[in-house]
Amino acid sequence: MALPLPLALSDTIVALSTPPGAGAIAMLRLSGPEAISLTDAVFAGKRLRDQASHTLHFGTIRDQDRILDEVVVSLFRGPHSYTREDVVEISCHGSDYIVQQILALLTRRGARLAEAGEFTKRAFLHGAFDLAQAEAVADLIAADSALSHQVALQQMRGGFSQELRELRGQLVKFAALLELELDFGEEDVEFADRTGLVTLLQEVQTLVRRLLRSFELGNVIKNGVTTVIAGKPNAGKSTLLNALLNEERAIVSAIAGTTRDLIEDEVSIEGIRFRFVDTAGLRDTTDVVESIGVERTKKRVAQAALLLYLFDITSTTPAEVQAEIEALNPGRLIPMLAVGNKRDVASDEEITAFQDLPDTVLIAASRGDGLDELQQELLRRVRGEGLDRTGSATIVTNLRHARSLEKTSQALDSVLTGLGQGTGTELLAADLRHALAALGEITGEISSDDLLTSIFTQFCIGK
Amino acid sequence: MALPLPLALSDTIVALSTPPGAGAIAMLRLSGPEAISLTDAVFAGKRLRDQASHTLHFGTIRDQDRILDEVVVSLFRGPHSYTREDVVEISCHGSDYIVQQILALLTRRGARLAEAGEFTKRAFLHGAFDLAQAEAVADLIAADSALSHQVALQQMRGGFSQELRELRGQLVKFAALLELELDFGEEDVEFADRTGLVTLLQEVQTLVRRLLRSFELGNVIKNGVTTVIAGKPNAGKSTLLNALLNEERAIVSAIAGTTRDLIEDEVSIEGIRFRFVDTAGLRDTTDVVESIGVERTKKRVAQAALLLYLFDITSTTPAEVQAEIEALNPGRLIPMLAVGNKRDVASDEEITAFQDLPDTVLIAASRGDGLDELQQELLRRVRGEGLDRTGSATIVTNLRHARSLEKTSQALDSVLTGLGQGTGTELLAADLRHALAALGEITGEISSDDLLTSIFTQFCIGK
Repeated sequence: MALPLPLALSDTIVALSTPPGAGAIAMLRLSGPEAISLTDAVFAGKRLRDQASHTLHFGTIRDQDRILDEVVVSLFRGPHSYTREDVVEISCHGSDYIVQQILALLTRRGARLAEAGEFTKRAFLHGAFDLAQAEAVADLIAADSALSHQVALQQMRGGFSQELRELRGQLVKFAALLELELDFGEEDVEFADRTGLVTLLQEVQTLVRRLLRSFELGNVIKNGVTTVIAGKPNAGKSTLLNALLNEERAIVSAIAGTTRDLIEDEVSIEGIRFRFVDTAGLRDTTDVVESIGVERTKKRVAQAALLLYLFDITSTTPAEVQAEIEALNPGRLIPMLAVGNKRDVASDEEITAFQDLPDTVLIAASRGDGLDELQQELLRRVRGEGLDRTGSATIVTNLRHARSLEKTSQALDSVLTGLGQGTGTELLAADLRHALAALGEITGEISSDDLLTSIFTQFCIGK
Repeated sequence: MALPLPLALSDTIVALSTPPGAGAIAMLRLSGPEAISLTDAVFAGKRLRDQASHTLHFGTIRDQDRILDEVVVSLFRGPHSYTREDVVEISCHGSDYIVQQILALLTRRGARLAEAGEFTKRAFLHGAFDLAQAEAVADLIAADSALSHQVALQQMRGGFSQELRELRGQLVKFAALLELELDFGEEDVEFADRTGLVTLLQEVQTLVRRLLRSFELGNVIKNGVTTVIAGKPNAGKSTLLNALLNEERAIVSAIAGTTRDLIEDEVSIEGIRFRFVDTAGLRDTTDVVESIGVERTKKRVAQAALLLYLFDITSTTPAEVQAEIEALNPGRLIPMLAVGNKRDVASDEEITAFQDLPDTVLIAASRGDGLDELQQELLRRVRGEGLDRTGSATIVTNLRHARSLEKTSQALDSVLTGLGQGTGTELLAADLRHALAALGEITGEISSDDLLTSIFTQFCIGK
């Protein structure tokens, strides 16, 4: 309370915090030093300044003698509020007209219309949470699947920040050891435990790289996985697609293809959104390399996050499948899964022939056989090592965080290289500061006005 | 509390009460005997059952071990709540995903998804307010102008209900006098004060008819006034339209005409929405009666609530204007206003010639001269006697209420006729009961399940 606040926090802001449009209830929020007195000036009911924090009060909002609405007012006294400032929430009838009238009244009385994300920005500036947690608030609001929700909530509640604190602790410990070496160095004594130093730093680097790798999954969780299905015309692609979509019909959404022959459909499997892209059937010939259709499909495959190659085990051979896959996805650079269909009508010999093919699942799409295994294989390719099944591992979903982690990792590499080459401690310390600074950018210990503006303007108004 | 409740009130309902869609905050509302215990079962924070009414509590909503969101819970103990039941409001992050998860959790635990308007219906059934007030809640949410807001708010706060109570009181007083006459009648004594009875009933009838007439304005307030502008091509219609629209540019909305030559625009004048319809200019001849263009305009005029006839005072005579108006609006059956334009360039003689024309305003549209007077004349035609300028008179805006008032009025007429014809007291009493029943329909003293369903299903979910 005694600390001088930044100028930006000295006024009182107001915004509609519920979505616009007609509804039963709309809620306006005020935050700042005048939140309570401003409301008192227009609220006919109990005097809010005399009321305890965390209490609710019924009354009317009045513009002079004119009643604007009957409302319920929620009173939160700072620092026991979202922003840590005095906060008043006014729940009125859900009419745009009433909301505009009350907003106009409060701004005439001296409140300022809040910018996007300004409530959360104030919470951050008052130290209610760090920047990574603040960013997770926006992710949480945007979350539309179980996993994206879980990851955002964990980040908002400080899971990621906790890992960063631990990394920071390790680096500070390393800095202390570096000081120790500096002392010994001045006495020109051979430093005994250089190996220990390297080991510690490598452990930190491993943690940073694990977080960085998790961004691949984090990105998928936020944005979904584009999965291209390729195969010959009668391989059973449509049947497979329908079978996959039927699994969670409720969250299927049909998207009219922008490209003539493409059908795209989304389905959520264990909380991860897969966008399946059906491609034109490949020509029924092993001589596929030159065909235009395949070239087109190859282009689509090159943009894919995942390739699902479907074939009919009753009408092809393992060698043919391998050749087709090599033509489509040379060197298997795109993560992929081969799927042999029609195992229900295949002979034992046909099944046996394909059973040992790598990265292959055999299914009967028309009967739904093998679909569970297929889904698990898809998930395995997407999740990698980033997510253990209990969901406790931290996943980086934010590009800004990934970039900062990359900078951290590069700085740590420099320190490791320096240690190997016997670089002077002062230079090592400079690299170490870079690593700490890059970590600090994530949580906002090191931040600029521009960065804060670019982050919080991505929020909605009223949050 | 000791009274047995209708079966419909024995369970606990839940709904999203804020508009759907992404926003900072969403609010779910529970009402019913289990509202507090159901929330306690999924809320990690203070035990709500131990907390006082009108308090706010921060915590998390959990589905077993899984955290769904960080929320703030508002606790209202019946009867000190909107519905008069125990009510819990859960403010969570404004994500559809989170809202659906929490709704699913609460319904699995035994809450029922509320029907449209069910919270307000419960408030009505518990006697928190009468039916006319409950209906005004929906009107208030839909209100989009100062007047519709004011009328709905007054009705919600019981202004209309108070007038109805007074009418009822008068009718009950009349019933008492009727009993008196019955006593005298049996003694075969000539009844001295029949005139007094008639006078009392006529007073009541006057009040009922005033309310009925106010519906004309009430309907306008709710639905706007279609005002057809007619006139010759160079009378200055477009200039006038622009001048009128510029007055309150902020709430102008352009509606693409469905008919080729019509331009429609809305503007709010002192809270009343006028929808101006520009018609094709009339042929420049006094022989307009047979022209097809005029026929078309006449059709449009016949559908109008108000006609604004615009003419150029520098190029026509009062007699011509009168003839044109008679052709367009024979007998002036449609409420209308004649508007003489270009008074700024007219000679004194021209101005004097038109000054005594009835229902005529002289303006200079291009300079905005006379627009205030024009607007006041338009308002006068719409408001009639229904609304005094202080806004204290009750205005009926609901068709259902108007129909009930009509039935009341008809029943009162029967009583008056009966009194005149010396009809027996029992028959008069029957008509009186009809009048009282019709009044009771408005406030819901007399209501059926069907009526309640048809009223409350017009509400939004969550109210």
